[in-house]
Parts: sequence; C-alpha cells; structure tokens
Amino acid sequence: MEVCGGRLGRGEGPPCPGGFLDLLEEPIPGVGTYGDFNTIDWVREKARDRDRHRKITSRKKESVCSFIRSVFDAWSGWLVVTFVGLMAGTFAGLIDIAADWLTDVKEGVCLSSFWCNREQCCWDSNETTFEERNLCPEWRTWSQLVLGHTDGVGAYLVAYLCYVAWAVTFAFLAVSLVRVFAPYACGSGIPEIKTILSGFIIRGYLGKWTLLVKVVTLVLAVSSGLSLGKEGPLVHVACCAGNIASHWFPKYNRNEAKRREVLSAASAAGVSVAFGAPIGGVLFSLEEVSYYFPLKTLWRSFFAALVAAFVLRAINPFGNSRLVLFYVEFHTPWFLFELLPFVLLGVFGGLWGVLFIRGNIAWCRRRKTTRQGWYPVLEVVLVAGLTALLAYPNPYTRRNTGQLIRDLFNDCGPRQSSELCDYRSNYSTGGFGPNSTWNASGSAALAVREPGPGVTSAMWKLCLALLLKILITIFTFGMKVPSGLFIPSMAVGAIAGRVLGVAMEQIVAAHPDWVIFSQWCHSGASCITPGLYAMVGAAACLGGVTRMTVSLVVIMFELTGGLEYIVPLMVAVMASKWVGDAFGREGIYDAHIRLNGYPFLDAKEEFSHTTLAADVMHPRRSEPPLAVLTHEEMTVDDLEGTIRSTSYNGFPVVISRESQRLVGFVLRRDIALAIENARKRGEGVVSNSRVYFGPHAPPLPHDAPRPLKLRPILDLSPFTVSDQTPMDIVVDIFRKLGIRQSLVTHNGRLLGIITKKDVLRHMAQMINQDPDSILFN
Amino acid sequence: MEVCGGRLGRGEGPPCPGGFLDLLEEPIPGVGTYGDFNTIDWVREKARDRDRHRKITSRKKESVCSFIRSVFDAWSGWLVVTFVGLMAGTFAGLIDIAADWLTDVKEGVCLSSFWCNREQCCWDSNETTFEERNLCPEWRTWSQLVLGHTDGVGAYLVAYLCYVAWAVTFAFLAVSLVRVFAPYACGSGIPEIKTILSGFIIRGYLGKWTLLVKVVTLVLAVSSGLSLGKEGPLVHVACCAGNIASHWFPKYNRNEAKRREVLSAASAAGVSVAFGAPIGGVLFSLEEVSYYFPLKTLWRSFFAALVAAFVLRAINPFGNSRLVLFYVEFHTPWFLFELLPFVLLGVFGGLWGVLFIRGNIAWCRRRKTTRQGWYPVLEVVLVAGLTALLAYPNPYTRRNTGQLIRDLFNDCGPRQSSELCDYRSNYSTGGFGPNSTWNASGSAALAVREPGPGVTSAMWKLCLALLLKILITIFTFGMKVPSGLFIPSMAVGAIAGRVLGVAMEQIVAAHPDWVIFSQWCHSGASCITPGLYAMVGAAACLGGVTRMTVSLVVIMFELTGGLEYIVPLMVAVMASKWVGDAFGREGIYDAHIRLNGYPFLDAKEEFSHTTLAADVMHPRRSEPPLAVLTHEEMTVDDLEGTIRSTSYNGFPVVISRESQRLVGFVLRRDIALAIENARKRGEGVVSNSRVYFGPHAPPLPHDAPRPLKLRPILDLSPFTVSDQTPMDIVVDIFRKLGIRQSLVTHNGRLLGIITKKDVLRHMAQMINQDPDSILFN
Repeated sequence: MEVCGGRLGRGEGPPCPGGFLDLLEEPIPGVGTYGDFNTIDWVREKARDRDRHRKITSRKKESVCSFIRSVFDAWSGWLVVTFVGLMAGTFAGLIDIAADWLTDVKEGVCLSSFWCNREQCCWDSNETTFEERNLCPEWRTWSQLVLGHTDGVGAYLVAYLCYVAWAVTFAFLAVSLVRVFAPYACGSGIPEIKTILSGFIIRGYLGKWTLLVKVVTLVLAVSSGLSLGKEGPLVHVACCAGNIASHWFPKYNRNEAKRREVLSAASAAGVSVAFGAPIGGVLFSLEEVSYYFPLKTLWRSFFAALVAAFVLRAINPFGNSRLVLFYVEFHTPWFLFELLPFVLLGVFGGLWGVLFIRGNIAWCRRRKTTRQGWYPVLEVVLVAGLTALLAYPNPYTRRNTGQLIRDLFNDCGPRQSSELCDYRSNYSTGGFGPNSTWNASGSAALAVREPGPGVTSAMWKLCLALLLKILITIFTFGMKVPSGLFIPSMAVGAIAGRVLGVAMEQIVAAHPDWVIFSQWCHSGASCITPGLYAMVGAAACLGGVTRMTVSLVVIMFELTGGLEYIVPLMVAVMASKWVGDAFGREGIYDAHIRLNGYPFLDAKEEFSHTTLAADVMHPRRSEPPLAVLTHEEMTVDDLEGTIRSTSYNGFPVVISRESQRLVGFVLRRDIALAIENARKRGEGVVSNSRVYFGPHAPPLPHDAPRPLKLRPILDLSPFTVSDQTPMDIVVDIFRKLGIRQSLVTHNGRLLGIITKKDVLRHMAQMINQDPDSILFN
Repeated sequence: MEVCGGRLGRGEGPPCPGGFLDLLEEPIPGVGTYGDFNTIDWVREKARDRDRHRKITSRKKESVCSFIRSVFDAWSGWLVVTFVGLMAGTFAGLIDIAADWLTDVKEGVCLSSFWCNREQCCWDSNETTFEERNLCPEWRTWSQLVLGHTDGVGAYLVAYLCYVAWAVTFAFLAVSLVRVFAPYACGSGIPEIKTILSGFIIRGYLGKWTLLVKVVTLVLAVSSGLSLGKEGPLVHVACCAGNIASHWFPKYNRNEAKRREVLSAASAAGVSVAFGAPIGGVLFSLEEVSYYFPLKTLWRSFFAALVAAFVLRAINPFGNSRLVLFYVEFHTPWFLFELLPFVLLGVFGGLWGVLFIRGNIAWCRRRKTTRQGWYPVLEVVLVAGLTALLAYPNPYTRRNTGQLIRDLFNDCGPRQSSELCDYRSNYSTGGFGPNSTWNASGSAALAVREPGPGVTSAMWKLCLALLLKILITIFTFGMKVPSGLFIPSMAVGAIAGRVLGVAMEQIVAAHPDWVIFSQWCHSGASCITPGLYAMVGAAACLGGVTRMTVSLVVIMFELTGGLEYIVPLMVAVMASKWVGDAFGREGIYDAHIRLNGYPFLDAKEEFSHTTLAADVMHPRRSEPPLAVLTHEEMTVDDLEGTIRSTSYNGFPVVISRESQRLVGFVLRRDIALAIENARKRGEGVVSNSRVYFGPHAPPLPHDAPRPLKLRPILDLSPFTVSDQTPMDIVVDIFRKLGIRQSLVTHNGRLLGIITKKDVLRHMAQMINQDPDSILFN
C-alpha cells in the first residue's frame, strides 16, 4: 500500500495508463488492506485469495515464467511451513541451550570454557547425580571463586548473594530490553495470538523485533529464576517466525486470511518444540488457539510440527536425544483404586486453576488500573529478587523448574541417590539395572519401601516449594517480561502429585492387608508409582489453568509413549476441567483476552439467550437513523460530509432513502482512498461531482462535472439478516463466516446494522459485564 | 410424530386444551421432523436444541424432578458416548473372535472343543509357528477327518475342495442374509455415513436390524476369504450403536444435529477398535467423515474411542493384550537414503489408489446400469469361489489377510522359521532373544543375510499374491456384502513394501561398498528392515485409496509407538497423495458418494469458478416466476392449490407480489401438516378461510370463516444473499452453516431461491458432470 500509493501520489514514474475507466480493472491502491487494531473480513479475504488463485492458474499456460510462478504458488504453502518448522526448531534449541547455561551461571562458572553449563563442564566427571555435580573440579561456584572454599556459613552467604544478584540482574536486563525495544514481547503471547488468529490486526506483534527481543529476554527471564516457563512464549516465537516466513511468499503476505493459516501451523510447531509433542501441538493449535482451521492447514501444521521437532532433536539441547527435559518411561501398571487419588489430583488442579485465574486477573486488573502499573521495571526486579531470596534455601525451588519436574516425574531407580529416593530398602539392592527393586516382588520385605529421613525432609521441602510456587506464580504471570505458565502450573501439579504419591505409597505400605490394596498389590508398596502421580498432577493443574482437554492428554501421552496412562490422565484432566468450570468457564487465556478487551468471538462458548437481531442492531429507537448512502443521488461533497460527520467503518448503499432497498455496502476507508485517488489523478472530479454506485451513469446535464464512479469499491453481496433472526443464529453466522458486519432488514427494507463489536458488546452485556470493556473495532 | 398425530386424529384421549390460540404455544405435531432422503437444516436444528436447553435450565429450580432432569440432560452427552464406546468395543471383540474361528473352520475343526479356533485349540502345544500348527493333535484338518491322513494329492484336493466349499457357503449365507433382512448392511458404509453426517436422512441405515445383520454377515464375509476387511464396516457398526444409544436420550433422539455429534464420536470409536488407535480414530472422524465437529465433540469422541479401546483390550480377542493383530515394535533406525524407496512406495500407493478407484467405480457403475446388478447373490458366490480357488494354493493368500499383514510387518527374528525369514545366516545364531542377528553387527559375516531358497520362493509367491489381491479387490469392493477396503489396501501395500524391502536388503548386501550404503550401514544388510518397508507400503496404499493424511500417519504411529518412523510414513503418504491427486482428487469414498448421487457438499473441495448466485438460482429466465405466498391475502384453497401445483419443498412469503418484499419462508411439509391439523381439530377452518402469516389478523368481514394463523410455522429469519454474490461465497455459506436453501434478492426485492440441490447440481455442472446425477433433495 505505502509503496504504490506513495509512488502515484508523488507523481514519480510513469502514470498508470488508461485513466478513468481503468478504475474498474485496476485496484485503487490501499483498497483491501486493513488499519491497525481492525478486524479482517474473512469472507472478503478468502474471496480475494480465490481470485488470485484463479488468475494464476488461468495464466499458467501462457509462458514458462507464468508456469513457474504457478508451480511456486502451489508449493509455497509447503515451503512456508518448512521454513516455519526450521525456524521454530532452531529458536527453541538456541533458547534451551542459552537458558541452561545462564541458569547455571547464577551458581558458578566453568573455568575451562565459560560458555559451558555445569553438565557440559563436568562431562568427563563421573559424578553426574545432582548432589555430587558440585564436586567436578572444572566447575567453580561463586563462593569457591570468591572465598576459595565452599564450606561454612560465609560460603553459603556468598553463594546466596550471588544467586540473588544474578537473578535480579537478569530480570532487570529482560524487562529493560522489553520496555525499550519491543513492548509486545512481554507475556506469554497466547491470548494475543488467539485474537490475531480470530482476525484481528495488531501491527508489529509478530514482527522481527518482537521475535529477536522475545528470544533474548525469554532466556534472561527463565534464567533469572522467576516462576515462569518458556513454553507459551515459544508459541509466540514460532508465530513471529511464521509471520516473517509468510512475508517471503506473496500468497501469504498479501492475504490476511491465508497468513493466519501459516500462523496456525506455527503455533503447532511452537508447542511441538516446547513439549516434543508434534501431534499434541497440532491438537493444541486446533483446540486452543486456531479459529479458522481447514483440513489443508491440519496437514501442514502437522508437517511444520514434525520439521520443528526434528530440527530440535538434531540440535539436541538436552544431550539425551530427547525433545524434552522431562521424558519419562514408566513400565509399572496402575490399579483401579488409584483412580480415587487421581480424581483428587484433578480436583486439586481445578481448584488451583480457579485460584490462579482469579488471583492473577485481579492482580493484573490492579496493575492496569492503579499506579502500580507505572513501574513495571521495579515490579519485575522486586519479584525476581523476592523469588530468588525465597527460592535459594530450598533445593527444589533453587533448581531450574524444568529439571524439578523431570526429577518429580522420574521414578526412584536404585541408581538414584537424591533425597526423594532415600528409601531404606534401596540400600540392600545392588545395581542390577533400573527398577530392580520394583521387579523384586518375590521378597516382600525388600519391596516394601520405608522412607528414610531424606524422603521425610524432601516432603517438607516440597510442601514449602508448593506454597511458594502457588503464591509467586500468581504475581509473576502478566509482568512485562516473557512469561509462560505451562511450566509453573506443571510444577505445582507435579509437586502436589508427588507428595500425594508418596503418601499413598506409605499408606499402602502401612496397611497392605486392607481389602482394596491386598486385592491389587501383591507385594505391598510396589504398586504405587509416585512419578505417575506427579505426571497426573501436572496434567490436572495445567488443565485447570488452561482448560485444555484432548491436546493436553495427547501431549502427556507423547511424553510417556504409553496408551496405558491415558485413562489416569483423562480422569484427572476431566475432573480438573469440571471443577474449574463449576467456578467459571474461562481459561486463563480467555480471561486475559477479556481483561484486555480484545475483540475475540469465542467459538466454544454457546450463546444461550433469546434476544433477536432487532435488539442488538444499531440504530436503536432513541438514536438518529442509520447513515446510508444513495446509489446515484449524492455528490462528492455530500459523501465527504457523511464521512466527516460519522465515525462508522462502512455505509450501506440504498436505492433511495424512502424505499430503503439495499444495493450494497461500502467501507469508509475505501471511499476515502477512492476520492483521494481520483483527486490526485486529476480527472476532473470536484466537490459537486455526482457519485454513483450503480452499473450505469445516471443522466447528467452536459455542463455537470465528471462523475465519480464508485461501483468497483461497492460490496454487492453484503450479508443481511432479518430483524427477527435470533441472536444465537447471528452469533453463529459471525463466528463461522468471520464477517465484520451484517445488515438488518425488516420485510425487505433496510433497518439497521450489526457489527462484530455490537455482537461482542451484547454478549458481554448478557453476562452482566461492562459492554464498554470491548475496546477495539 | 406418528403417535401424537395418530392419537389426535383418531380422537382418542382428551383433546388438547385451549384450541385455536394454542397453536402459538403448542407445536403442531410433526413440524420439525424430516422425511426420508431429505436434508436437515442445521441452523434450525441447533436453534431447536438451544431452545430445549434453555427451557430445561430455566425450569431447573422449579422442582426436584426438573433438577434431576436437568442434571441428566447435562450428563447425557457423556453417558451416550460411554455406551457407544462400550458397544463398539464389545461388537469389535465379538467380530474378531467369531471371524478368527470361522476362518479356521475353513481348514479344519477342533475335536476337543469345536468352538475353539486353531490357536486356542493348540494352546498347550509347543508348535505355534505357522507351518507347524497343523501338527497339533487336537486340531483336525478336513482331509484328516475325511481320509484319515494329510499326505498326498488326494488329501490336498480334499482340503482344497473343503476350503472352497466353506468359502462359497459363508459368502452365500452373508449375501442372502443381507438381501433378505437388511439391504443397507452391505458395503463399507463410510460413504453413506459421511453423507448422513453432512445432514442427510436415510431411515434405517443405522437401525438395529442393520447392526445385527451387519455384525453377522461381516463375520461370514471376512471368514469366506473374500478380499475385504472388517475395519470400514466396524465404523458402520459403531455408528449403528451410536444411533441406537442416542435413542435412549431425548436430547439426541429428537434432534438430528445433536444425534450427528454422537455419530461422529461413534465413528471415532469404530476406527479406534479397528486399529487400536484412539487418537487416530478421533482424527479420522475429524478429517474423513465428520461434517460438523465442535470442540465438545472432539473431547467426547476421544472418550468414546478410549472406552471402546479398553473394552476391546479387556476382551483381548487376539490373546496378546494388544488391540490389533499387527502390533509391531521396531528398534532399528532408518537411514536417509531409504527415503528414496519410501517415495517409490508412495508413488506405487498413489498409482494403486488411482487404479483401484477408477477400476472399482467403473465396475460398480456397470453393476448399477446393466443387468449384471440383477444377480447380486450369484456375483458374490462366484467371486468368493474364484477367490478361494485362486487363493488356496498360495499360502500367503490362503491365510487371513490380517495375519498376512502382521507377518509382513514383523521383522525376522531368529525364532521365526517361516519362509520369509529363511536367511542362511540365521542357522548359525542361537536363540539369544529376538533380533539377535540384527544386533550382532560386530561380525559382518553373520550380519550379511543371504537369502535361502525359502526367501526366493516367498518373493515369487508374494508377487503372485500381490497380483491376485490387486485384481480381486477391485471386483470385491461394492458387492452386496459388508466389505471394507482398509485391510486389502494395506495388504497390497505391505506385500509390495516387503518385496521392495527384501530387494533393498539384497542390493545393500551385494554392494556394501557403494558410497551411499557404506556411509550409513556399517555392517552390510543389517541397516534395512523389510518389515518397516511393508508398513510404509501399507500406509501408502491406504493413503492412495482413501486420501487420508494426518489420521493415517497417526494410526500408523499408534501401531508402532515410535515417533522415529513418522518421517518415512509421512513421506510415503504425501507422495501417494500427490500422485493420486494428480489423476483425480477424489478418494474412494467421495467417488462412491458421487456414483450414488448422494447430496454431499464436500467441505474440502474448493469452489473456484466465477459464477454468481444469479446464475444458479431458480427460476431461470425461461422458467415461470417463483412460487411465492403472500402474507395475508390467500385462502386455504389458494394455499392448497399452490402446494398441489408445485413440488417445491418450501415457499417464500412476501408482502405482495408487486413489491416482492420478503417476510419469511415456510416449508411445504409444515403447511400441509398445519392445514391437516387445523381441519382435524375442527375449528371452523374451511377452504375459503383466509390464511395469514403476519402477527395480526387482517380486517375481515363478520361473516368470513375463521382465519388460519400460520405465523408459528413461518421461519422469520430465512437466509438471503444478493444476486451478485459470488458462488464461492454462497457455497461457503451452505457448507459452514449447513442451511438447506437461501433466498436471492436484488436491490431488496425477492428474485429467486437457491437450494442445496441447486448448489450441488451447479458444482457438478462446473466439472462437466451430469447435473442430474444428484438424486435426492
């Protein structure tokens, strides 16, 4: 738009040949694009794409060049998703590696090669368990560097201080970069992406600056130890990559609807690399974020998700050939009586979801409306400092949250020497391979695991960690740094699940003779897998917060690879969703969409009121009549007057004001552009030129100035509904067709107009919300 | 409809209180139901469901009974899918067990317990490999029973004859049962289910008789050795179960749109039990069969699929705790150069798909149009006899096709002694566990597997089997017995893949020094897994026939459980789809839908022509003007005259014939029912009663007969489009909203009407088809 409009405006280059009549063939520059914070018209966009496609295929046989162009056009869909997959996988790998390194920098540095994280630094060393890693000689903690030793209170304090200092520094850097370079890089981005995919325009939200700043600040924010994850923001990063890739292909660059297909695929790729779950990613895109999801997009999303997953696997950021930090492989079965604790975990997840959503929304609203929101840098620094101060003393919160989740998911093999696996019976078993205690069910004495002092203290620490995570996450999500809530939510659930699992284990061990236990467990405690409880809890909590269902179960299924555990996961996720829905049907993303007043028309929500189109349309009874244009009676002056005196986005065109018989609909933006364009071309269009929208010019006196023919910008097929149409059908039409406005008729006469904004305001009103909270148009 | 209408008609029971004015509150009996072979109006159905839901929730607090009713209503969605899952799993298990037994009956009988199949009969015996199973003493082949021995030409001939005789008997029984009891039970059912799900009514297609007969005849047809599978028909069986289950819940019984949600879930459950792939089943339902698939349905489909899978696992029909006959677990990686043979398999699959679709459609058209179709029983018996005659001599075709696929998918471990695994090197390795030859890559001499004579002869037999399967399947699918084509297609692909895999293996073994091989394979042939080729080939061939994509890859992924093999599968499926699409975009189901002229508006196909609504609407220029009703000028006589003289399904109601200003739309069926009802009630409505559609009665002379008020049956919100609307947008509206007709206006005046049939005819015309092939309305 800018290029062409500017060129013609400044008179550079040869003027387009033809003149007035060409208006029909040649599009008026700028017509068909959208302003910032506007809603796209899906029907128009899709019609434009079909036109373009027809043109290219019809020219296919004209020349070699056209043929190549048509082939390129046909393949560009696959090319663009390939690029999206490549970029998403690369960025995810880079972020993983950088965040691992920076997280370790908080505690120490690798002397031989400072760019290595602790694990890489100690690669050759045999002590790879968590507690003994500090002994690797190449890796120096800050207390070692400062004091020369690691013992005593002094060393602890130095390490503590360094940890907090680094955390605050990282957080400060992150929030400053976001503030200065790309304000859109903050948050998880998923509410905005949902809104964009539903057809809203937010310029720059998916730009290259946002991408760059988001990647850098995400690494900083994760490393600072704030209670946030990188999974949600990875979806935003992937969507930025998708948006950038779609700029390279005219098919996707010039069409807002087509570009959104690429973005749907990109969000699938983002989840795919976040969790190493390509199928789960596609379902996430389908269930949670996408709005218009044709089958072609399904297939391409799947492809993008796979490419991204394989790039990430090739980068191998975790050094274990796995896509995720917390890959688990369970082999023990679960038993029917365990469904009860799983349901309990689901209920806990649902309650956590409700608590989190309410608390977080209240806090974010406070941030929006009070002076507190004026100091975002200070807020981030304070929260980061507080988090670090409280987290360091507890080994479970000091650690990277991803690693914590992995440890909680994993089962206690005999090789594991962490506190969590400090069972007495472990000492007597040799290193016959993982899970040997579990299989040695023949000797019941061995299999009943009594907790050592380590397990008891681990439980206490885990409970404290749970409390800290619950509280601090509520205040963290929504700050002006990139922040996802998948990982903190999963951590909350995993801790709760693990604690419950160990408790169950001990109950079973203490009462192996109870009927429900003795029926299933032949060897006491060996029938409880606390790691499975952690996983179920994580799924339940994530489900409570996001209200995802199928995609969440499939993501978890891809983590474990066994159909066996789908039932526990489903039971917990369903319980969590039902409990959560009982307190309010919105997930955290929808709540944030509503908080920010984005014009998002949710496809999931049922509209169940009995209002009619006549109750929603404008003008109301008390308002002035609808601003209409007549199809051949107005002058340019009249037209400009109407535009100036109103602020509507578009105007119906009628035969005459008396008959109110509808001819078409014309957009304000298009009228302004057309008049400006006609004036610039200097074709004798003056203020008292007649404007006509009909196919033929009306009879004019000979001395009349040249008329302005506006039929090319007239939409001859506006959507109409009758005033008696129930609003549920109207909402359905808006949702399914993605239109921006519909005209309302009564017995064939034009009566009013309903815009998407009217629908959203009406829906807000129906659930007793402030209708003015819908901000944009 | 029948009950209430009949009751009122015969004057039994107390007449409904109130009388004339109650027409407003009390629905006219029968209004809102559909006739056979009619298309439902999704918008109306969904609006009705919302009304019902509103009514129930508003009454919720009135009494305990209403509260229970509302809770039952809210939970009935979950209950119904639970029942669907239970029924689908049970039927699948029964069919599997019965088919296994009947298939073995063709060759012999278990003396100790005749209801056991060969495997169960020989449970105690150690000889469980395919060749040695005959040695089990309890199991007697027919030649043993007749001649007392199994050696020599005589015994072979007896066995041969018995095999053919049983096959013909089973086939005859199957086709006779279908002919006599339930003609709808034939075929795979998927084309019809797609059509039903898109909103068409075929009474009895999903009834209990169809279910019963389909289950029985499916077992017979599979056992007869015909080249058909039970996977497609299982979807039909599950949908019948879904239809029956939805009868138990008023929410689903009385609403055609809601019932289709249950059917979508049922088809997911069907595929879930057919392949043991719950996620793949849901995606199949989403990608291939469903039309209207809200997210709620996604979640419930997933649940139904899971329940079905677990019921089937509990029944354990294959005795291996697996859901499918051909579960495989590969552990060897694949290499980049193998993508070339995988693409070749994809090309083969695409070509097979094209050949099969064209051949099968040509044959089915011949059956429909010539006298050949008059003798369905003879045809089935002939084909079954021919199949048995040709299949028996070749051990690979004599076997159950499912078992054949399993053997082809499986890799040659040292325990396997079948012909296919007759490699020389096998003899020197002991029984150290499966795949020990493969892991012994240290000694290259061992790992290079030279084919023994068995492999060579197996290759020849497999090639013959391929030829037979290809030819006979084309003639089998579409006969008047239940027949699925998943298994035959997969068999064709698995044979081709296995042959190619063995060929590749030998090429690599013969030329281990070639650059591409030496780079990847360190120990000669051990880098090729022929079983993987068979699986890729099976996916490619199935993809070529059905043009499924994501769901097919996910089904195959669930069979193997490893993300590792998704890339080969995707490459092959994509190659197969592209090759197939180059020759014609229709899958076999769409081709059959078109052959049968079902009114199916495909959501996948893009409408890419430039026609306008004005080109499609009726009346055309040469036709008489549109039959309209006026809203208060007609008498009952006029109305009945209009109904009698036309055959339209509905009529627009206008203010006056001159102004053509639209008021609403009324259905023919509803008018007839309303007049009949008014007459029956005896309220003074006679032939010259005035009919009015408006909200208020027009002024009438005092002696005029009582007027007939038809506003309750008038649809006040008919869909309208302008005559200038491009047809691609109109098609989109029909597809997305699921409407039955749309009125066409020009500058606010009613001009014509477009029905779904018009759209389908127009689309057929645009691709140079006979528009009259669309049969129903």
